[in-house]
Amino acid sequence: MEANQEPGKADILEAANRIIPYLHRTPVLTCSMIDAMAGANIYFKCENLQKAGAFKSRGATNAVFGIEPHEIMLGVATHSSGNHAAALARAAFLKKIPAYIVMPENSSKVKIAAVKGYGGRITFCRPTLEAREETLSELLKETNAFEIHPYNNYYIIAGQATAALELIEDSPVLDTIVAPVGGGGLLSGTALATHYFSPSTRVIAAEPLGADDAYQSFYQKKFIPSVNPDTVSDGLRTSLGSLTFPIIQRFVTDIITVNDQETIEAMKLVWERMKIIIEPSSAVALAMVLKHKHRFAGQKIGIIISGGNVDLMHLPWLEGIGG
Amino acid sequence: MEANQEPGKADILEAANRIIPYLHRTPVLTCSMIDAMAGANIYFKCENLQKAGAFKSRGATNAVFGIEPHEIMLGVATHSSGNHAAALARAAFLKKIPAYIVMPENSSKVKIAAVKGYGGRITFCRPTLEAREETLSELLKETNAFEIHPYNNYYIIAGQATAALELIEDSPVLDTIVAPVGGGGLLSGTALATHYFSPSTRVIAAEPLGADDAYQSFYQKKFIPSVNPDTVSDGLRTSLGSLTFPIIQRFVTDIITVNDQETIEAMKLVWERMKIIIEPSSAVALAMVLKHKHRFAGQKIGIIISGGNVDLMHLPWLEGIGG
Repeated sequence: MEANQEPGKADILEAANRIIPYLHRTPVLTCSMIDAMAGANIYFKCENLQKAGAFKSRGATNAVFGIEPHEIMLGVATHSSGNHAAALARAAFLKKIPAYIVMPENSSKVKIAAVKGYGGRITFCRPTLEAREETLSELLKETNAFEIHPYNNYYIIAGQATAALELIEDSPVLDTIVAPVGGGGLLSGTALATHYFSPSTRVIAAEPLGADDAYQSFYQKKFIPSVNPDTVSDGLRTSLGSLTFPIIQRFVTDIITVNDQETIEAMKLVWERMKIIIEPSSAVALAMVLKHKHRFAGQKIGIIISGGNVDLMHLPWLEGIGG
Repeated sequence: MEANQEPGKADILEAANRIIPYLHRTPVLTCSMIDAMAGANIYFKCENLQKAGAFKSRGATNAVFGIEPHEIMLGVATHSSGNHAAALARAAFLKKIPAYIVMPENSSKVKIAAVKGYGGRITFCRPTLEAREETLSELLKETNAFEIHPYNNYYIIAGQATAALELIEDSPVLDTIVAPVGGGGLLSGTALATHYFSPSTRVIAAEPLGADDAYQSFYQKKFIPSVNPDTVSDGLRTSLGSLTFPIIQRFVTDIITVNDQETIEAMKLVWERMKIIIEPSSAVALAMVLKHKHRFAGQKIGIIISGGNVDLMHLPWLEGIGG
């Protein structure tokens, strides 16, 4: 594929083939109790069971193994407080190149440990977007590493698209696929894969009310950045990207918001009933479907469970968050 | 199969076919981080993702759909504070017969709700084995229901054996399969399935130190009951049965104990790394393998994750249990 060209059908299939040796084909799980509550049939694509605990491993692996080797010979770099950092460190480790990760100094210990566990070289910075970008820019100059943005990169988007591709392959024909939206890497990939491999299926996004920049951008038809986001869904606080937004505008049917209480209830429901650990950023999708039952009644719905990286010492329902 | 004859190869295959329409074929998951810690390759058979959250659904479904219909026409009954109660209620619901469940009055709300959710008819009793047996005996007289013991029943044993059968089918040839032992239904089924379908594989049991009746019985070569068990693994407090113990004696290589702290560490490790919810009774198996690394070094090991029914408001590592 070309780095400057929106991924087509062949690029997504190529990404799927490229990442096979390094990743899990995650299971699609169902739960009759949740189906009964929703009045629909839900197929959960469990990227929380993916390597490094999130779909982010797909994009990072596709980028590191897809980009021309001479371009990334000196390493890859990014700034990230979350799942992309660990995913990129893991992919670079497998490719035997360095990964330089800029992380805000207030990142969770669990996430720092994950990046270090994969051999990532961390540079800490103040927890502002400005400091992150500045630190990364200096680091890129110093190391001549290649920047891999967490979502505004066509290799990343093509990689994330493979989750929906597998979901489509492993489920009956779906009426709707629901994905959460933060920067839009997963959502734009999901929308492309659905467009190419299951064109009769709608794609709908779920977003936290306290970080509804994608909702605003989508309906105002212009880019609105995420300013002072306030949500328990730490993976969904970022703004859309210049590459993800246009794809979302063309191929996504709707973006619907939920509040944090709805998200945490859905998260606990999945833990209790399905016995899998999902993070708040994943629970927004089910929360949205349960909130709008009438809209989805009788449908076959695919939900992308984006990740399962949660601090087990601080569970939101035990700490009164979103309550 | 015959109710009074130890299940053979054909009986286990028959059970596997019988339960297909009602149960999940649960995934076999792996985790490279845990493999690195153990110095071995571990294949986790995830019965926590089974219907009703535990392997118990296999035995209960095999019993309810395998026993002659005229015998259970008036319903099935058992006493259970745990996963067998929900599993039997669910199987009876699917078979459209009543399930009468005797539960101790101090059973957890989550487990009572699960039994009620499947339409089980609960009779509460004092929390002693004597009261449970007495109450069940009266109930059987009143209702003419058919008793389905949680483990001392060949239909149950043949049903539980199907978990190991699937694990064997879905993994490379295993050196060892590890299962937890309480009453011995899962362990004896696992031992039979392994004997018939992967005879070169050893079966080793893991048991909590605070409820080591199976360990004692195994090495003293006589039945030693479980008296005042003290362990966080609530599913493993029961004594072996007259049908399970002889199978265990013949086909199990070893029984090894772990303490509750080791169990809770293994439990938290699986939650963190594999993003699946397992109950303490399941974690004993991994705890045992990690404790005896030298013994299992370089092996391919199957572990049966027995269930995932945990009270999410009370997590052992947040409450200092086993610490």
